[in-house]
Amino acid sequence: MPKIIDHEKRREQIAEATWRVIVEQGMEGATVRGIAKEAGLSLGALRHYFATQDELLMYAMQLVKERATARIADIAANEEWAPKERVTKIFLELLPTNQEKMVEMEVWFAFTVYFRHKREGFDAQHDGIYAGVRKLLDSADQMNLLRKGLDKEIETEKLYAVIDGLALHAYLEPQRVDGERITKVLEHHLASLFH
Amino acid sequence: MPKIIDHEKRREQIAEATWRVIVEQGMEGATVRGIAKEAGLSLGALRHYFATQDELLMYAMQLVKERATARIADIAANEEWAPKERVTKIFLELLPTNQEKMVEMEVWFAFTVYFRHKREGFDAQHDGIYAGVRKLLDSADQMNLLRKGLDKEIETEKLYAVIDGLALHAYLEPQRVDGERITKVLEHHLASLFH
Repeated sequence: MPKIIDHEKRREQIAEATWRVIVEQGMEGATVRGIAKEAGLSLGALRHYFATQDELLMYAMQLVKERATARIADIAANEEWAPKERVTKIFLELLPTNQEKMVEMEVWFAFTVYFRHKREGFDAQHDGIYAGVRKLLDSADQMNLLRKGLDKEIETEKLYAVIDGLALHAYLEPQRVDGERITKVLEHHLASLFH
Repeated sequence: MPKIIDHEKRREQIAEATWRVIVEQGMEGATVRGIAKEAGLSLGALRHYFATQDELLMYAMQLVKERATARIADIAANEEWAPKERVTKIFLELLPTNQEKMVEMEVWFAFTVYFRHKREGFDAQHDGIYAGVRKLLDSADQMNLLRKGLDKEIETEKLYAVIDGLALHAYLEPQRVDGERITKVLEHHLASLFH
């Protein structure tokens, strides 16, 4: 048992090394050799954990999603916040308001563009955020938080666009679009949906 | 004189060949050799127009911006539409509602991620859209089109996020986020700003 846990932990460390390489050098730098060096492993040792570069890259991207999903599950289960506050915190969790999430964002964009042309492995809905936004609006509606007469189909698409648009701009222009500004715009938008 | 025009025209043809290579194969395929082949030129002939790969790539990205700017200038100058309609058409021009603009979007994303790590050449505000959105909202305000009491700073950031978020989603999920859906969401959002 401990051995399996160590194996998984080592894979996560290698994935985190992959993130650092991507943030520093972009996908061009994310070779097996470059990642092994960043992780402080020999090429042979790295191959023990990931047989191919694509297996490693897919895992490193998957880990971004898992970390974010785990954080969101924690917030959703935390009953010390009122429902409206909880929904706001969940949406904010999708946005790069701190350094950790900025790294995830950077990695997410690099992977998305990179995997796009490797058609087989590419799933545009890999992050499941559109479905998640819809589910959150539906449950906010069931809790009577939403204004009457909203077109939930359009509001889902728009809110999803606001979230990823802010994320894109934080990635491109972190100076202007910082955590404070992201929070202000998102809260302003949610206020137009909630009553 | 004709010679200069031919030179510029040939540079544009090479840039368009670059776009096709990027759409088909991503930035990995955008080598000088691959682009020369797509453009039907020898390597030597291509070097006559662009001395280095980076010069070619920067020009190909610049051309995306020029084409979009020219289309927007045409719309802005067309007085057959009422002001509100004209503003809506200008914003829609920034979104991939047809095949031509979808290619531009694809190229824009590929370049943005690629140039990010070549710090010197990278300018996050390369497309000037944030400033453009602010200017359009200001002029809509001067024409008394906007609702009273809007926070233009926040509304600019939000509208800019809606535009680029929709563009990103059209790029990732063209099946769901097609021209019709993009138009519907954008018009719905503008209706919340205009009175």
